[in-house]
Amino acid sequence: MLDHITQTTLLLDEAKCRQNIAMMAEKADRNNIRLRPHFKTHQSAQVGEWFRETGTTGITVSSLKMARYFASHGWTDILVAIPVNIREMALVNELAAKVQLHLVAVNIETVQALSEKVLHPVQVWLKIDTGYHRTGIPPHSHEQLDATVALLEQSDKLQFTGVLAHDGHTYKQTDADAIRTIHHTTVFLLNLVRDRYKARFPELKISIGDTPSCSILQTITGVDEIRPGNYVFYDLTQQHIGSCSFDQIAVCMACPVIAKHPERNEIIVHGGSVHFSKDSLVGADGSVIFGRVVALTENGWSEPLEGIEVVSLSQEHGTIRASKALFDRYKIGDLMGILPVHSCLTADVMGSYTTLEGERLEHLSGIGQV
Amino acid sequence: MLDHITQTTLLLDEAKCRQNIAMMAEKADRNNIRLRPHFKTHQSAQVGEWFRETGTTGITVSSLKMARYFASHGWTDILVAIPVNIREMALVNELAAKVQLHLVAVNIETVQALSEKVLHPVQVWLKIDTGYHRTGIPPHSHEQLDATVALLEQSDKLQFTGVLAHDGHTYKQTDADAIRTIHHTTVFLLNLVRDRYKARFPELKISIGDTPSCSILQTITGVDEIRPGNYVFYDLTQQHIGSCSFDQIAVCMACPVIAKHPERNEIIVHGGSVHFSKDSLVGADGSVIFGRVVALTENGWSEPLEGIEVVSLSQEHGTIRASKALFDRYKIGDLMGILPVHSCLTADVMGSYTTLEGERLEHLSGIGQV
Repeated sequence: MLDHITQTTLLLDEAKCRQNIAMMAEKADRNNIRLRPHFKTHQSAQVGEWFRETGTTGITVSSLKMARYFASHGWTDILVAIPVNIREMALVNELAAKVQLHLVAVNIETVQALSEKVLHPVQVWLKIDTGYHRTGIPPHSHEQLDATVALLEQSDKLQFTGVLAHDGHTYKQTDADAIRTIHHTTVFLLNLVRDRYKARFPELKISIGDTPSCSILQTITGVDEIRPGNYVFYDLTQQHIGSCSFDQIAVCMACPVIAKHPERNEIIVHGGSVHFSKDSLVGADGSVIFGRVVALTENGWSEPLEGIEVVSLSQEHGTIRASKALFDRYKIGDLMGILPVHSCLTADVMGSYTTLEGERLEHLSGIGQV
Repeated sequence: MLDHITQTTLLLDEAKCRQNIAMMAEKADRNNIRLRPHFKTHQSAQVGEWFRETGTTGITVSSLKMARYFASHGWTDILVAIPVNIREMALVNELAAKVQLHLVAVNIETVQALSEKVLHPVQVWLKIDTGYHRTGIPPHSHEQLDATVALLEQSDKLQFTGVLAHDGHTYKQTDADAIRTIHHTTVFLLNLVRDRYKARFPELKISIGDTPSCSILQTITGVDEIRPGNYVFYDLTQQHIGSCSFDQIAVCMACPVIAKHPERNEIIVHGGSVHFSKDSLVGADGSVIFGRVVALTENGWSEPLEGIEVVSLSQEHGTIRASKALFDRYKIGDLMGILPVHSCLTADVMGSYTTLEGERLEHLSGIGQV
């Protein structure tokens, strides 16, 4: 299969990917909570089908455009986990007419705009800021919460469905106890908010969703739903956090070697920021890396090799610094395997996947704009 | 026009863009050197036509795929300014059959592979490392140069056309004198290499290409060709370097405001790393910014506003920190104008442009994969 690869390609190990999907489905089942996986990582109709085979019925996406894509592939219960863009009311109404559409709001102005313009029933979640401080309503902002909930209560189309949070601050941790503490704090705060409205809304749900918490915790209580996404592929960032082992990483870039510089043991591959995007990781020694090199085989790839790393990316070039022994192992025209730092962004810029069997799978960003 | 924008959109000011194109064409004419603009910044057939109208006939691209795209749009003299990927010989031969194809090599193994497999005449340039240290042959590596040139001389298909360099290290400068010094060093070193082979190859050309040098220098001597690219749009990085003024920046993101956080004067827009890519700039006070906010008007946009900046990007969210006065000026559902840090990468992830007249222009990355 590798012989047929001529250009920079994103490889997908279907077996590993299906194992990741099954692992989280089993964990959700065991904890008796619902899994609503975030599809922003893979953005692929075909990968979505692998989730369906494990019983997934509801999904999470990060834009209305992505909701439209998955709705067109038969998904009928879709949560758009970003404060809804009220300029896109036409698309909101188009989607709400055909699927169970869940939207997120963090400001009363958004709920006001929705209540004036939605034509079909929509499920509304309030996003609570439980510590990440990107967006969300602070859990102690009772005045703001009460006013927003009152507005939802008055609407005949907007259904106050639940409270949710995204613990993005777990991505900055590498200590399991720190991640557990963040998680338990979030669950506590979301329950406080729910309890305030439980009498009026007895069906109110609690939803959380970040890959580190959902990967590291074996027992998850106090929530109705989890929304992790990155675990479908994992990546070097998640391995660094402690969410996964290297051998769970299900995607790998294959980059042609285009130049060698023996005077500094550096190898140049065709693979830059337009292929990887530009997230980096800081290693224990303070050095910044943009990917780690693995040995490619016909059946997949090895664990990362020691003494060889992607040390910089420009638009189309990647620079790999190697030990002398590893430098000598590669020749011009070889394919180098590189694990990505952040698989969501790498998949988004690559725009498609190639399985180890040579099958091409689509990604929303690569199917052409409509 | 702005009223019709519902989602995150990359605006292109055609008038500014055409002024940038004309400015560099005029500078090349005045210096009696050839302009072979790098099309990796815009990657757009339609923007390419604006260059053609100023007399451009030869272009630069950064991948064979990009060469194929522009060949399909009538460009017949194309330099692929990255060490050629010898796994793509089928595409090399397909292109060489129909256009004047210029390839770059930095290792003798690459020239060997080309000499064995090209079926049509190809122009070969040797890339010289004049100080950037990404890739290229060191100018003092006479043994390596001589052996490579000898191999080119033996081939009946490979035509040794010239020596070229890319001064990527000018992008790290903010001092015009430092950029001039880099430029003059490069021109000196390329002339040394050319002089070594001039007797045997009297037509040998010298080509350089980086936007900072080509923007800052008014008089350019000692080279036959320049290959700047970013100047078509410019961006905050180029303004920071000193290559352009704010009002020469010809692209601007329009991002819907989706959340507001009065407790910390932060605004959330739908605009993250999948829209901007992830390059950042470090300001004078050490803070990292991912974009600067401008006031959008029907005719374009203002200079950057003071006291409001993009301070972080996640996959789909952008966080803008503002002064109280500017925070209050925006409401949920407004469009915020944001100048990108690195226009090449922003255009690549956005995949299309919308002109101020509302016309949609294509970008190679958004036309769907073949």
